This record gives sequence, C-alpha cells and structure tokens, in this order.
Amino acid sequence: MHKVGIVGASGYTGAELIRVLARHPRVSLEVITSRQYAGKPLGDCYPGLAHLDLVFEGNEDESVFSRADLFFTALPHKAAMDAAAGILAKGKKVIDLSADFRLSDPAVYEAHYGPHAHRELLKEAVYGLCEVNGKLVRQARLVANPGCYPTSVLLPLIPLLKAGLIDSGGIIIDAKSGVSGAGRGATETTHFCEADESVKAYKVASHRHTPEIEEQLGIAANREVRVVFTPHLMPMKRGMLATIYCTPTGAAGRKAVEEAWRDFYSASPFIGIAGGDVLPDTAHVAGTNRCIMAVREEKRCNRLIIISVIDNLAKGASTQAVQNMNLMMGWEETLGLPMEPVFP
Amino acid sequence: MHKVGIVGASGYTGAELIRVLARHPRVSLEVITSRQYAGKPLGDCYPGLAHLDLVFEGNEDESVFSRADLFFTALPHKAAMDAAAGILAKGKKVIDLSADFRLSDPAVYEAHYGPHAHRELLKEAVYGLCEVNGKLVRQARLVANPGCYPTSVLLPLIPLLKAGLIDSGGIIIDAKSGVSGAGRGATETTHFCEADESVKAYKVASHRHTPEIEEQLGIAANREVRVVFTPHLMPMKRGMLATIYCTPTGAAGRKAVEEAWRDFYSASPFIGIAGGDVLPDTAHVAGTNRCIMAVREEKRCNRLIIISVIDNLAKGASTQAVQNMNLMMGWEETLGLPMEPVFP
Amino acid sequence: MHKVGIVGASGYTGAELIRVLARHPRVSLEVITSRQYAGKPLGDCYPGLAHLDLVFEGNEDESVFSRADLFFTALPHKAAMDAAAGILAKGKKVIDLSADFRLSDPAVYEAHYGPHAHRELLKEAVYGLCEVNGKLVRQARLVANPGCYPTSVLLPLIPLLKAGLIDSGGIIIDAKSGVSGAGRGATETTHFCEADESVKAYKVASHRHTPEIEEQLGIAANREVRVVFTPHLMPMKRGMLATIYCTPTGAAGRKAVEEAWRDFYSASPFIGIAGGDVLPDTAHVAGTNRCIMAVREEKRCNRLIIISVIDNLAKGASTQAVQNMNLMMGWEETLGLPMEPVFP
Amino acid sequence: MHKVGIVGASGYTGAELIRVLARHPRVSLEVITSRQYAGKPLGDCYPGLAHLDLVFEGNEDESVFSRADLFFTALPHKAAMDAAAGILAKGKKVIDLSADFRLSDPAVYEAHYGPHAHRELLKEAVYGLCEVNGKLVRQARLVANPGCYPTSVLLPLIPLLKAGLIDSGGIIIDAKSGVSGAGRGATETTHFCEADESVKAYKVASHRHTPEIEEQLGIAANREVRVVFTPHLMPMKRGMLATIYCTPTGAAGRKAVEEAWRDFYSASPFIGIAGGDVLPDTAHVAGTNRCIMAVREEKRCNRLIIISVIDNLAKGASTQAVQNMNLMMGWEETLGLPMEPVFP
Repeated sequence: MHKVGIVGASGYTGAELIRVLARHPRVSLEVITSRQYAGKPLGDCYPGLAHLDLVFEGNEDESVFSRADLFFTALPHKAAMDAAAGILAKGKKVIDLSADFRLSDPAVYEAHYGPHAHRELLKEAVYGLCEVNGKLVRQARLVANPGCYPTSVLLPLIPLLKAGLIDSGGIIIDAKSGVSGAGRGATETTHFCEADESVKAYKVASHRHTPEIEEQLGIAANREVRVVFTPHLMPMKRGMLATIYCTPTGAAGRKAVEEAWRDFYSASPFIGIAGGDVLPDTAHVAGTNRCIMAVREEKRCNRLIIISVIDNLAKGASTQAVQNMNLMMGWEETLGLPMEPVFP
Repeated sequence: MHKVGIVGASGYTGAELIRVLARHPRVSLEVITSRQYAGKPLGDCYPGLAHLDLVFEGNEDESVFSRADLFFTALPHKAAMDAAAGILAKGKKVIDLSADFRLSDPAVYEAHYGPHAHRELLKEAVYGLCEVNGKLVRQARLVANPGCYPTSVLLPLIPLLKAGLIDSGGIIIDAKSGVSGAGRGATETTHFCEADESVKAYKVASHRHTPEIEEQLGIAANREVRVVFTPHLMPMKRGMLATIYCTPTGAAGRKAVEEAWRDFYSASPFIGIAGGDVLPDTAHVAGTNRCIMAVREEKRCNRLIIISVIDNLAKGASTQAVQNMNLMMGWEETLGLPMEPVFP
Repeated sequence: MHKVGIVGASGYTGAELIRVLARHPRVSLEVITSRQYAGKPLGDCYPGLAHLDLVFEGNEDESVFSRADLFFTALPHKAAMDAAAGILAKGKKVIDLSADFRLSDPAVYEAHYGPHAHRELLKEAVYGLCEVNGKLVRQARLVANPGCYPTSVLLPLIPLLKAGLIDSGGIIIDAKSGVSGAGRGATETTHFCEADESVKAYKVASHRHTPEIEEQLGIAANREVRVVFTPHLMPMKRGMLATIYCTPTGAAGRKAVEEAWRDFYSASPFIGIAGGDVLPDTAHVAGTNRCIMAVREEKRCNRLIIISVIDNLAKGASTQAVQNMNLMMGWEETLGLPMEPVFP
Repeated sequence: MHKVGIVGASGYTGAELIRVLARHPRVSLEVITSRQYAGKPLGDCYPGLAHLDLVFEGNEDESVFSRADLFFTALPHKAAMDAAAGILAKGKKVIDLSADFRLSDPAVYEAHYGPHAHRELLKEAVYGLCEVNGKLVRQARLVANPGCYPTSVLLPLIPLLKAGLIDSGGIIIDAKSGVSGAGRGATETTHFCEADESVKAYKVASHRHTPEIEEQLGIAANREVRVVFTPHLMPMKRGMLATIYCTPTGAAGRKAVEEAWRDFYSASPFIGIAGGDVLPDTAHVAGTNRCIMAVREEKRCNRLIIISVIDNLAKGASTQAVQNMNLMMGWEETLGLPMEPVFP
C-alpha cells in the first residue's frame, strides 16, 4: 500500500477524497490535516466518517510531509502554493486542488488572484485534465487539478477545436452548479432557505474560471480564445451542467461532433457520449468520475448546442484528483474510482 | 362582485388562479370545471383549498358558460380552443392560458400543434403580455395569455429591440424552469426522485415556445427574428430564470439598457430593474406577479448578458391572467395581485 | 390607516410580517428597524421587497417608538424584553415574537433563558394563541406571540384536554420543522449542503419550547403536565408537522375527537379539521395562517395519533402576530391574512 | 467470479443492487430481468448505467434461472414468491427483497397481503437481518431481505429487548422516510411538486411493516409485542430516520443502552453508535450499508428516546441484500459494500 495524505481535509473536497481513498485498493491514507480541526478526530468534522478512526493534524508542521509519498492539497488558493512547495521540497508528489497552479502565465494568475509566491512552479505544473494531458500527468510531480467548471467545458470542446469542427470565436458557456461548489463555509448564499427553490446567476462575466477555460481552449485551438461564461447556482448539492453554444465550421453537425468525441475518447472509460434521445442529466453522473456529453443542432441559427454533465465534487475535483494519482503512480486509470451513479 | 369562472381548474395553473381569485376584491369565483373531478369538491383535488367550499362541474356542459361574465380557460391546447369559442358565443370574455391563441399565423400554429378548429379567432385574439399590449387587452374579449418562457424573455427584450439597442440576430436564450411547468401529470420526469438533485436540458432546439417568442420579438424588431432557445429543468417547484445573450448595436452598455427599461416600464409596477450589485433570483419573485431583470456586459466578446426572473405559475401563467382580467374589466392593474414574494 | 412598526425586521419573521402587512387593508407600515441594516434600504436585506421603498432604522433610538401605534418586536429573546418595555412606556401596544413573555412564571423563564429584566410584565402579557385566548388578546397591550412548535401542539390538544377526552399524562410529541425555524443566521446546520437530503433530531428532551407547551397544556388540563418533546429538522424551508401520541380517556375515538375540535373551533376560520381520508400535509398550509389537524386510532395499543400542520413562519410566527393585531385593534380576525396556500 | 442475477431490476432497488454488484470483487452480474424493459439495454432504463452494457431479459422465461448461482428477486410482493420458488427449484439461492417471505406465519401474511402460493417456503426462509441472524443466513438458500422500516427499528431495539433493558409494551415508533421508498412508479404522491417542501404522515396505524416489526421484536422479547408505528414521507430522495419512544425497565439510561449496543454489535462493522453529542443524521449514512443509533433520556417522563438512521435503499434494501449474499457465500461480510457516505 502506498502512503498518501490530504492537506486541508476538512472541506467538501477533502471529504470526497476520503470517501474514495478509503476504498482505494492500493493506497493507505496516512495523514489528514486541518487548521480548524487540528487534534480532533475526523468524526468531529464528518460524523459519517467517524468509523475511519483518523485524527486531524495541524497544517503548520511540515514534518507531516515526510509521512506519505503523495499529497493532495485541498487548501484555499494562496495557502495551497506554499504547502505544495513544501511537499515538493521533501521529494514527494503533489496534486493540488486549488487554483494556484492551473494558469501557466504568472501575470494572468496575479491579475485574478494576487501575487504568486512560487512562480517557478507554474511552468512545471501539469494541468491535470486526465483525458487530455494523461501522458504529461504520468511524468509529473506537481499536478494542478482542474477547476470544476473548466472540466465540464474543456472535455467536450477540446476535441472539437482540435478537429477544427467549431469556431474558436463566439463560444458562449451557460453553466449550472450545485451549491457544494461554494464550499463548506456558512454564508447567506449557502443558507438552505436562500438556496432552496432558488436559481440565480453569479459573477457574470467575471468568474475566475474564465481565464483557466480560455488558456486550455487556446492551446487546443492554437490561437487565443475568448469566451462568454455565466455560472449559475442551482438548488442541489452536487452536480454541474454546462450548456455551450458555438458555431460549426462548415457543415459539421451532430454526427461529426459525436464521431470526433468517439475518436478522441476511444480509450477514456470515464467519458460517456449520449448518442440517443436521452440528454445528459447531472443525476447520471452523481458520485462518479464520469463526464457525459451530447450535442444538438439549431440549424436555423447555425449553432451547435453542446451539453455536458459532471459531478462538481467528483470529476470536477476529488475523483479527478484520484484519477491523476492513478496516472502519476503508473496504475490503471480507473482504479478505485466510482463509475456507477448513486441514483436516485 | 363580478362573476368569473375557470374551465379546467384541476391543474396547477387552476390552483394558482383560485389562490388569487379567492382574495380578489372585485370578483366572485362562481364556476370551476374539471373533466376528472366533475362532481367532487375542490378539496378532493387540492386539500389546502377545501375551506373554499367549491365543487367541480364537468367540462362538457356549456350551460355553465352562462354563469359568469369572464372565464379563464386552463385546458390543454386543442381542448381550449373549443371551450373559448363556446364561451365567446355566449357573449362572455375569455382569457385562455393554453397555447391555442398565442400565434397569429394559423400555419405556424398548425406546424407545431396540429389543426386549429377556430382559425378566425386567431386574428381577434390579443396577445396578453400586459406591459406591452395593455391598450389592446383593455378592448379585447379574447386574450391569449402568454407562455411562461415567452414572458420571461419578451419583457426584457422587447424594449431593447424597440429602442434599437440590440441586434435582432444571434440572440441565444438559456432558460431554466421549475418542475411545475410540466404540469400535475405524474410522469417519470416529474417523479421526485428523478427531478430532485438533477439539472437537465430538454426539447433543445425544438420547444414549442420558440415560435411564440420569435413572433413577438419580430413585431418589436419589425423584422423576422430567429433565436436559439434551450429550456432546462431545475430541481425546484416554481421559478423561471432566462439568461439571454445578445449583441449590442453600437456601444450600448448596462446604462443604456437600464434606461431603456426604465423608460418603457415607467408605469409598470410589476417590473423590477435590478440596478445595483444584486442579480435577480427566482426567489425574489416567488408567488408574485413580478418580473425582475438585470444586464451585464462582457465587453471582451461584445455581448450583453440579460437575466430575468419570474414565477412560472404566477407572472408566467395565472397571475398574469388575472392582470389581464383587471385590464379587460377596466380596473386598476394591480388589483388583488401579490407583489411581495413568499420568502423564504 | 393605523401606523405600525417592526423592531428587528431583518430576520425571516420580519420578512414574513412585511409580506402580510404590506397588503393589509387597515395598516401602514411606518417603521422597520435593524441593528445590522440600520440606514440601508429594505432591498439590501430582501431584494424581493425592494419595491416597497422602506429604509431600516437602528434599534437603539427609542424615539422611533413614537412613530406608530403598535409594534411587532421580532428580536432575539433578551433583546426583545427591553424593546417591549420601551414601547409600552410610550403608551403603545406590543406583539412580541420572541420567547420573552411567553412563560408566566419568572423562575421557569430564568431556568431556561437566564435573568428577566421585566418580571412585572410577565404577569401582564397575554399568551397570544388567538383561537384559545382571543378574548384576553382583545384587551391586551402586550401580547406574547406563541412559539411555532407550541402553536402546532396546543391547537389540537387544548380542546381535548378541556373536554377530558385524553389523558394529560404520557403525551409524546414528535415534531418536524423546516429549516427557516433556525433563523437567517448562517451556520453549519443551516448550510444547504448539510440540510438538504437530511433528516435529524435536535435538542432531544431539552428544547426550550417544552416549558411553554407544558404551561399551556397545564392550564387546559387544570393540572401539571409533562410531555416528551422531540423536534426534528426537515429538508424544506417552511412547514411544521406535529405527530402527537396520547391515551384516550374512556373510549374516545376519532369521532369524539373530531367533534370536540368542531365544537371548540366553530368560530375559528383558520382551523381546518381533516375529517376524510386525506391526512394533513405541511404543503396544505404553506404561506397561510391556518392549522389543519387530524386524528387516527391505534386501538391495539390504546393510543390516539394526532397530526397537525402549520407554516412555522406564518401561523407559527408572523401571521399569527397579525391575527393578534387584528384582535387587539378590534378588527375582523381574518383581515389581510392569507388562507389559500401557495401550492405547489 | 460467481454468477449472480437480478429478477426485476428496473426499479430503484434494482438500480442500487447494480451499483454495488458492478464493483463487487467476487461476483459477475450475468442476468437482469424486467417485464417492462425486456429486450432493451440497461441504459434505456438508467442512462447513468448505460456503460455497463447489460440488456434486460423478460421475467417470464425461467430458463434464465440457470444462468447464475444466486438471484436477487426485486419484484413486487406476490410476483416475487413464484420467481423465488422457480429459482429454488433450479437448485439456486435466492435473496428476496419483497415482503413475500418476511413473515413466518401464513395467516399473518395473508391478512395483510392476500393468499400465499408457497406457504411451505415461509418456514424455510431466513429473515435476513444480518447483524442478528447472521448464523442462520450463512446456511440459508432462501433469505427474506428485511423491509426498510423494520431494519431501522429492529437494529436498535433487539439488543435492548434481549438484555431486558426496555419494556416490550408501549413502544412508539415515529419513522421518517425519503420518497424513494415509494418506488419508481409515477403517482401524485411521488410528483416533485407534491413531495418537495412537504412533510406528511401516511398509513397511520395501518402500515404493512407493522406485523414484520412486531414478529421480530416478539422473538427478541420472547413474548408478544404490539407497537404504534407511524411512517412519514420527507422531501428527500433517500434516507430513513426512526425516532423510538420506550420505557426503561429499572433505571436503565443512556450508558446502559450504549453498552448493550456495543456488546451486541462488537463484531458488526456496519453498526455505528453515536456516543457523543452529535445525533444521527440520515446524511451520515447516505449510500452506505450502515446503521447509526443513539439514545437520550427524558427522565421527567421515564422514557428513552432512541434514534436510528439508515439509507432506505441501501441498508434498508439493496446493500443489506448484498451483505446477505456475502454471508450466504461464506465471504467476508463487508466485501464490496460502501461504508463512507456520499456527502454532501
């Protein structure tokens, strides 16, 4: 069993990591840390995990970084960069779930998040979108686990841009997320009575996932890409659906798009292509590491409408992180990862 | 007290009509009909309304049409057209909540819904979008109450098209609806365990509200309009949010759009313009006859992002129907209509 | 129009008071106060109420107490007692929605809530359970608006204890509440992701509403009463259902219980008795001032099972407060109060 | 890999069985049947399971019973008994998830469900409450998988009755269930708009799980037991919480009860005893095979209040069925069974 640890394990992505790592056949979860819960048993933070008999350690003492071979850093951005650097300095591997290593250009990072204390690592970090960058991930010691919105958008669009089937201009992304994306912090926005029976947009034309999406689409298109990105909050815990409007180049329609996806993802067990009448539903991927995508044509307006679904905490965060671990360790990509949704 | 009736009162729009009409200061609800519940008390269908001591009558016997001066027809399309014709034949007024009189061109109607048995009435029917067609509604004896999606889309867009602030081409509408829009029929789609914790698109590029939206936008723009329209189902009972992507003509930005709305709706108490930082939330209008709209700019892509919210059963159906009644009867527009949301 | 005010209007009971008072035909809402929102428009706190053009004033300046004839105090307990005393000192009437005046015995109050600064007012305060104490309320200048759980329990039980139909010993109350009962404060308990898809008991055998229930049941039974009371949190915004287990005296069954209720509540329009097959559902009273009750027999165990439903924010708090106002002002009890639920 | 099959796999318990069996390390799911979906791929019924490439076969052709060594029958009661008999006749093992073999006395069965076509099997069937009857299950060829409500009630009560800590008379069970317990059939009760934001009791003093509970409690108490049992429907998909009121014999309090549980369940990894301040929450066991229980004292009324939580579709149905399979096959009890909840 290989030893792994989670730095910053008291949030929702931490809980989801623990759920999957606890059953993973090749790892042993040796260390969990939390500033808030240091010294307390895991059950104080997550009563449903009390039987695991784990105890939080503090975030400050870097000696814990010696106790495992690979760490997941699930800290807020800015805090994550230092932890990652400290872990790498001990010769260990890091999968960072924050935004700290997702943007390759320090100037872009700093425009959105403020000063970066480890600019040298930005170049080294591999963007861990497993189905696209799998080969790089296998060689990496620092993986930047993608954001949830970017994951839902990039997986359907990258193959189409690479195949030249869609225009890189004029892409509009209307995305819908469950409330868990806002984290475990108690705020007015996350109050049950404010979020239940409520749908709203937020951070319109200003969400920090926009540059992340644009960088990766730009790499795929081999040119600068600008997108309109509108996130919405839905009255549900988990789940993310992206509705993407784009313009086909030439006469590319549903058939061509589905073929491009099938080609690109022929060796990717976590990608589902909804080829029949049923459209993707966030419930189809709840609790799994899967992404399901579909396309429809609006010929009258010369647009393609692409829909993709993921579980924002799983494929959009923690299970994709475990998928990255599987790749980094040279294991089978699917090891220990849930494929079948918890439904209903 | 003026006598009114509801034909087809056992569905959700019927229940919502009854809720409002029961407290309306100038009407007396004399007749409610239902094929399924004929002869049974209202409480058998809606236990929370049992105290009103109303009894359903059948839909077939047209003699009931003599018992009131104005009828709301809340029947499925096709069934509504005959009922409306029968009521008009008795010299009474009709507000039809179905799709049967919303499209002025019989050919367009028939392409989407099949044969129309009363094509002559299509010309006469007034499209009851109160804030836009109020003058015509005051003179009408047959009002076609707008669909829920069209209401949420037309109210923000019509003033902008009339003012020439936005392009009539390239409009993309990403709309989100609560489950009540699907009606009271029990189906797999409306099953709690399928709809809860689930977001999905449906009828992509094929929803019947598209021609209704396009006809009314075309009137405002004075030219043919084609839109991309994607409805989604949200895990909540009531509420509708439309996110609309369009291109400004010239340099029109947030300020110009908000001014155009304020001008156009200066005498419209049910329209709210969210001019500050807070974006519209479906919870802000729950149970009310209001529509709240806001706009944001994505200058990098030269797009405006418009957001509007209504309660699909209220402003999107039953309370707008009562607003139409108020206009047809020459009463104050706001009479008996809820303005304050039930929140939380 | 009579002038009224709300002290502490920024919480959920405040919002619900405003919803009802804004449409009430005989009052004008002149003053709303809030410590947190002092100086800010109502729309900053409740965007859906922005159109009312009200501005919060601070809680500290007692001069506002001169600006209306009757005040609702919707402050936390302890804070409410001083405000109430200040308002009374100005010769105005008070309806207090906190727990501060609900218990007549200072010792009992202080055992549960700590020192009481206005013990003399405890004697004067009338317990505002309108259907039971209506006559006293009409004469009162200080009304203690009942707690939500007590309202749901006392309305069905008091007539049965008074009629001697049930034993005053061995009563078990299993109560279920929506999350809004916890208030607008953002906590882990009220976080959407913790409350959604979750049911839990809380404050088992220790909830502060227990002495309130016991005092009022004791008055009805004319002897000391002890109950087992277990509150539960349900994944919904509003709504409260009490399932009450008690022992019939003699052979009293469903028929006798329903008759006792009909007798006792013959002049009470807000009480519904579910006499048929349909059991009360919290959805039957959502947004209304009603309480619906039903009874079933478990003869094998010699128990009666009583079920009652209210809306915890409406009949359990704010609309009952308005009902108290109607009584105190000598108006018709039902004035301005919603009877028909917002359904679905 | 051992071959297993599911007869009647198109319902929610079928989907949950497939979720767990698809990842089970020692079985291969060879056969799934459905009357409604015969000949169709699993994805037509459960799009989220489409990647498993299974095809439904019909229920009628008994030749499928030769294709596996053990079958789960997830049919409606009455249909299940014939299928089970047919499977046994082929020399295969059966775990039946219906009510058909849960009651040992044919007269009791027939009073609640109608004629039983295989009375001889009632005697043979083992009641598959694994933690209590594990030894018998290991020898069984026909296991009656317990009902969801009985599982939630029996697990906490049986050790206490056996230890003589509580009175077998006067037990009151107030139980709360998610909507999935009503099955996948689309009815008015299961309609999202009727179930959301709604709490209600149903089948008060008449639910068919009552005799099942009473038989098993009677065995533990070694005398006839009668309980009051009130099920409620909660607005959530999965989850079950039982609040149980009972009388201690002698001075048994929290400590004695927790000790009795710890003794009885010392070798039962799926049982959790909430010994601290945190009360069990259905979210603590979502998607798992666990049951968590707690107790509180109401000394003033000489009552114990016991609370237990399970996932009604998992420990209350499908994962308990897999646990039974593990026992019947002589495998480790925990094999392939989820312990960590999907949270949030």
